[in-house]
Order: sequence, then C-alpha cells, then structure tokens
Amino acid sequence: MTVELARLPNGLRVVTENMPGLKSASVGIWVTAGGRHERIEQNGIAHFLEHMAFKGTERRSALEIAEAIEDVGGFINAYTSREMTAYYARVLEADVPLALDVLADIVLNPVFDPDEIEIERGVILQEIGQALDTPDDIVFDWLQEVAYPDQPIGRTILGPAERVGAFSRDDLSNFVTERYAPGQMIVAAAGSVDHDAIVRIAEDLFGGIPARDSGPASAASFKGGEFRRARNLEQVHFALAVESPGYRDDDIYTSQILASALGGGMSSRLFQEAREKRGLCYSIFAQAGAYSDSGLMTIYAGTGADEIADLAELTVDELKRAADDMTPAEVARARAQMKAGLLMGLESPSSRAERIARLLAIWDRVPDLDETVARIDAVTTGDVKALASEMTGAGGAAMALYGPVDKAPDHAALLARLAA
Amino acid sequence: MTVELARLPNGLRVVTENMPGLKSASVGIWVTAGGRHERIEQNGIAHFLEHMAFKGTERRSALEIAEAIEDVGGFINAYTSREMTAYYARVLEADVPLALDVLADIVLNPVFDPDEIEIERGVILQEIGQALDTPDDIVFDWLQEVAYPDQPIGRTILGPAERVGAFSRDDLSNFVTERYAPGQMIVAAAGSVDHDAIVRIAEDLFGGIPARDSGPASAASFKGGEFRRARNLEQVHFALAVESPGYRDDDIYTSQILASALGGGMSSRLFQEAREKRGLCYSIFAQAGAYSDSGLMTIYAGTGADEIADLAELTVDELKRAADDMTPAEVARARAQMKAGLLMGLESPSSRAERIARLLAIWDRVPDLDETVARIDAVTTGDVKALASEMTGAGGAAMALYGPVDKAPDHAALLARLAA
Repeated sequence: MTVELARLPNGLRVVTENMPGLKSASVGIWVTAGGRHERIEQNGIAHFLEHMAFKGTERRSALEIAEAIEDVGGFINAYTSREMTAYYARVLEADVPLALDVLADIVLNPVFDPDEIEIERGVILQEIGQALDTPDDIVFDWLQEVAYPDQPIGRTILGPAERVGAFSRDDLSNFVTERYAPGQMIVAAAGSVDHDAIVRIAEDLFGGIPARDSGPASAASFKGGEFRRARNLEQVHFALAVESPGYRDDDIYTSQILASALGGGMSSRLFQEAREKRGLCYSIFAQAGAYSDSGLMTIYAGTGADEIADLAELTVDELKRAADDMTPAEVARARAQMKAGLLMGLESPSSRAERIARLLAIWDRVPDLDETVARIDAVTTGDVKALASEMTGAGGAAMALYGPVDKAPDHAALLARLAA
Repeated sequence: MTVELARLPNGLRVVTENMPGLKSASVGIWVTAGGRHERIEQNGIAHFLEHMAFKGTERRSALEIAEAIEDVGGFINAYTSREMTAYYARVLEADVPLALDVLADIVLNPVFDPDEIEIERGVILQEIGQALDTPDDIVFDWLQEVAYPDQPIGRTILGPAERVGAFSRDDLSNFVTERYAPGQMIVAAAGSVDHDAIVRIAEDLFGGIPARDSGPASAASFKGGEFRRARNLEQVHFALAVESPGYRDDDIYTSQILASALGGGMSSRLFQEAREKRGLCYSIFAQAGAYSDSGLMTIYAGTGADEIADLAELTVDELKRAADDMTPAEVARARAQMKAGLLMGLESPSSRAERIARLLAIWDRVPDLDETVARIDAVTTGDVKALASEMTGAGGAAMALYGPVDKAPDHAALLARLAA
C-alpha cells in the first residue's frame, strides 16, 4: 500500500492510496469548511450548501446527478462536520473518472436555483425535526453548546430553524467564495486507483480555479456548564464532557487510549461498572473527540428516571478514578484495540480515503501506519493517568440532560464531586 | 475466493471463505433461533439468552469474556433477529482460534447465574426504554405487529417488559434445549482463515454435542391493519408495508429490485418525488425484508404533522405506479446497484461471513456469486411490474404511525387509495 500526494499550483491537494486486489474505489472531495467556519448569521450554511450541491449544476439536474452514479451501481453522499464538508462516492474501478467528474461538478458548479432552495429548506427543516426526535443524538448538540458557548464550534451543524428558513442564494454563494478555496480542498481516492490518472483528472477538473485565501477559524475556548431539558421520555439521555487534547496535540493518542479504557468496549470501566455490575443502562460509552485546537472527552449513557443520579455520579467517579488507578493491563488492551482497529479499518477503501484526507488536512502530510503505531505504543500508563488527572483537575465540565431529569444531580453537584 | 463447507456428524455446519491479502478475519456462530421460534410466554427469551451468553460461563466471568477478545484488539458482539441469533467476533488472523474458543464457550456453556440474570433484566429493560425513545426504530416493531398479528413473527425481539421482568433460569435453559441443537448452528469464518484448521477447531468445540431435533417455526400469515400512537414529537414517523416474497421464493430478487427502484437511493422514485421535488421529508426509503416464508415491502418516511397526509398518499400512489410504468432504465439501474453493492460488500470479512452463514441457513449450500448475479440479471421489467401489481392488488397493507398523527389518513382510506 502506498500513499501518494500531489499539489496543484492553486493549492489543491490530491492524495491517493492504491489497495491491490480490490475492484472498487472510494473517491471524494474534502473541504476544510464546516460549522466552525460560519459567522453567527451563517449558522447552518455549510450544511445547507452541502445539500444544495446535490440539487443541480449547470450540466446536471438533481435526478441526473443521482442517476450518473447509481446507473453504474455506485453510491454518492456527503456530510458536514464542524471542521469539514466531504462529498464522496463509492464505485467500481472503471467508474472512478465518472465519479470524480460528478463530484467536481456538484462542488464547483451548483446553480442554487431559487425554487430548489425553497424545496431544500423544507427538507432541512424535516432533518432538524428528525434530529430532535432522536434524543441520543440531539443531546450531543446541546453538550457542544455548553462546552463552547457563543462560539462557532459550539453551534449546531444544521443551524437553527429560523436561519435555515431565511438563507438566500447569496448566502450560499458568499460561503463558497469565502471557504471553498482550492487550498482548502483535498481530492482523496483509495482502493483500485492509479495516482497519476487521478492527478491528471484533478488537474482538468480543478486546475483552473484561481488560488485565494480563506481566513482561519476562530479559536475554540472550552467553558462548560449545564443544559437540561425535561421531557416525558423513557430514558434520561445524559452526556458529560471535559476538555481533552486537540488532534494536533502531542497527547492525542493518550486521550484516545484513555477513552478506550474508560468506555470503549465491553471490558471498559464504564461498561463493566454501570452495565455489567449494576445493570443501570444498556448504552454507555466514552469517546475522545478532537478538533484542531481543542477536544472533548465525552461520556454518554441512557438510563431511567430513578437511576440517573447513581449513573451520573458513577461516571464522574470513573473519570476521577482513571487518574488514580489505571493499570498497565488496561492501557495495553486499549493500545491493542486501537492498533487492531486501525488495521481492520484499513481493509475498507472508504475508511482509507477518509483517513488519508483527514491526516493530510491535519498534518499536510500522511504519516505512515508505522509512525501512528509507534505513537500509540509510546503512550505509557503514567501518561494516561497524568492526562486524566489534568482533564478532571481543570475544574470545568459540560453536561447535557434530556428526558425525565428531575432526579438528576445538577452541574454544581457534579463539579463538586469531580473536585472532591 | 473459495467457499468451503463441512458438516459434523451431529449436524453442525462449518463454512469458510478465505480472502487473500487480508490480515484479519470475522468468525461467528449463527443459530437459527430467534423471535419467531418463541411461544407467546417465551417472547423475548431468545434476546435475553443472547445477553446472558456474555454474562459468564463455567470458565470465564463476563469481564474475562470481554478481556479475552479485547486484549488482542478484537471486538465481540451478537444480535438477535426474528429468525436467527448470531454471536461473532472480528480479530487479527492469529487470534481466530481464540475467538472461536470464546464464542463456543459463551454459546455452549453460559452459567445463567441468578444474580447476573437480575442485573441483565435491568439492562434489557433499559434497552426497551431506549427503543421506545427512538421513534424511527420502534415504529417498525409496531408495523411488524400489525403485519403478522398474534403470531411469533409479529412480536418484538426484545419482548414486553412484563415478560422480561419474569424470565427465570429455567426459561433460558429450556430455550437452549429446544432451539440450540447442533443442526441449527452454523460456524462461519471469512477473511484470513484456513478451512481445515477451522473445521478441526469446530470439531473439538462442538463435535461432542449430541444431535437433537428442533421443531419448525409456525408459518407466517400476513394480515395487515393499522397501529397509530399519538405523541408530541417533531415528526410523524410513518411506515407502510405490503406482503412481499420470502427469501426462498423465486421472486426474491424481483422484490429487491422493486424496492431499490422505489426507494433505494437518491435516484429512486420515492426520494425524487417526496424529497427532491416536494421537500416533504428528509428520510424516505423502501426495503424488501424477507423471512423464510413471507416478506415485507416496507416504506418508511418521517415528516411534519401538516405534511403527513400528502406523504402517506404519495407512498401509496408510488407503490401503485410501479406496477404501471416502471421503466427498463430504472430496472437496469437497480440491477447495477445490487450487483455493485454485492461486490463492494464482499470486500469486508464481516459482510462475507454474514453472507455465507445466511445463504447456508436458507439453501443449505452457498450459491456462487455468479449464480446470484445471473438471478439478478434475469429479472425483467415485466417481472417487476407484475410483482408490484400482485403486491398492491392483494388488498392488504400494514401501517404504523407515531407522533403528531391527527392529520394522517386512516388505514381504510389508504387501502381504498391502493385499490382505486
């Protein structure tokens, strides 16, 4: 497996990884433009733009975009995150040039037809409704808001309904001009792909866009606090976060190992304590989410109205206990899980394309697998305990609660327990 | 790629598929025991048993089961469906014998410790609560109940809370005796695996179980009807089904092509009409679910209180229209999507292990990929139209609605529209 990289004169980067033996490929365009690149009055525009890309270009209607890829058995999709928007397709090897042509077309030439904007507004308002009907999803949006209040990175990706109801054609065009510069774009392809051929196609499709600057995103500043919404649900959906390293931080692998040992699998502390020993919940997990300059160590659990007090206290206690008595065996297991997960994930072209695009966006190069494994292996039990101590000792925490929340401890009580 | 099959004298089958170039494998035990094999007083026991498998064996505690797999970076999980329970693990190639040992241990030697049963009861009650808090999930359970009323196949997998609250150790043991006969078990492995080695391991682990009979499941009989629950949600979650072929039916690929053309991707009729042209919803799809002797062509959509009437009528109209004017181009596209999806899915060892286990359970052999492709290619536009006509002309339909349902048409109105 070889990762190869090229840069066009306008700043656009092309990264590929050939996977021998495969008959298909995953290709896409990753743009470093997402929710945190929006000003407050733009909140939701990155995601709206992602939707409008599929609604017609100068050469293709919405139906023709879908048919172009689905006629050859492929699929095409996109997502918007806080730092990136990605447009990608999975196709058989012969259809890679077609897929790149369609992806470039929808990213570079959307027409923003006013009638289509109105229709898509309705679709996104339904998407917001669906998110609100998914408690174990929406609670993470609210957690993000209390973690980073009054900041672009703290706002929802979908945006508030009022803004989605008001975005215009100009709002879309302006965001493209501000954020879709070639220097912010990465074309990535993995699977049965030929680097030189992909570079030639990328030159044809993207080479003519003039270079231009995009300003940096505003820095993230973790604050913490509480969001609580009472509702007659079956479960209290509980999410707790403390600040953790960003993905450029030296400690990023330490935080991932901590998250894994704390709540990454069936042998993890939270799963064992809350579910296996006490039967308090069905779903419980920890994850270390990372942005360029901050991150969140998040714990989620869903439990009953009568169990939430015990469960919330247990999560805080486990966060603290990790700083005291994390064992070398647990750290070794977390390392093994991360490394095996890395190897197994690499057997899929979609994961590989995603990986090389993201690593390139972070580091402007793609570290070898060996380098990543070495960094994982270098994490010691002492590092994990020190990081846990630092995170819980910083004194801040964000929590979000949704459902029958009456018996849940408040933020001050959890902070006091964290500090005890 | 070669699929190899072996049968132990007691009836247990072993099926493997080596995938050159891979460094990992997916291995599991598929048992043809699920919700439809439960008598009414047993409803939920197959799933409860699946949970208890992870709660300790004669040789391993719950923690030791998890650690055994996670120490080597693997993961282990299980699921219960209406016709099957599967226990599976994904590991690096060197750990395949270990994974099989753990899987056999939890399936064959669970101890059903009374204290652990009590704890797990709490976990499953939380899982039921979580399902009820996921409207676009629970609506499918209700749809199933009205499709197959008063039948094991119509009941939920999780079972009602009252029964989950009452299951005993004997209930678990009895279900194992009744349903976990070696003739009902398939050991499947795909990825970096050696057939002869897997067979030898399976002989050691499973060869000593005496053969015994399990009775057949009771036949499914589609009825249809309406389930409607009003709740203050953001969206009405709407699911509609007509009966479609079972997976042993000659028309099974025809029904999958119909589902794909109707609501399988962005170019499908439902996506284009309901979302792209009218902006009525964010999520809409059709799927052809199949059991051994029946199946459901299901359409799901989530929409607003004011849009549900239009959306429900549109889905019925699209079901009918498929019988009238499905085009060769749409059928060709659906065939291409199915074939490419098959090829791309086969690049993952987990999908492959699942595929060979399921095909073996259905046919008692694993058809070649070529044979499957030939059956897909043999489906004509006329076949698709005829099947759509048959399904919609049968006069029955099941529907389930959850959310602000006041303005939704009732079952009689939709049936009349279907018959018009």
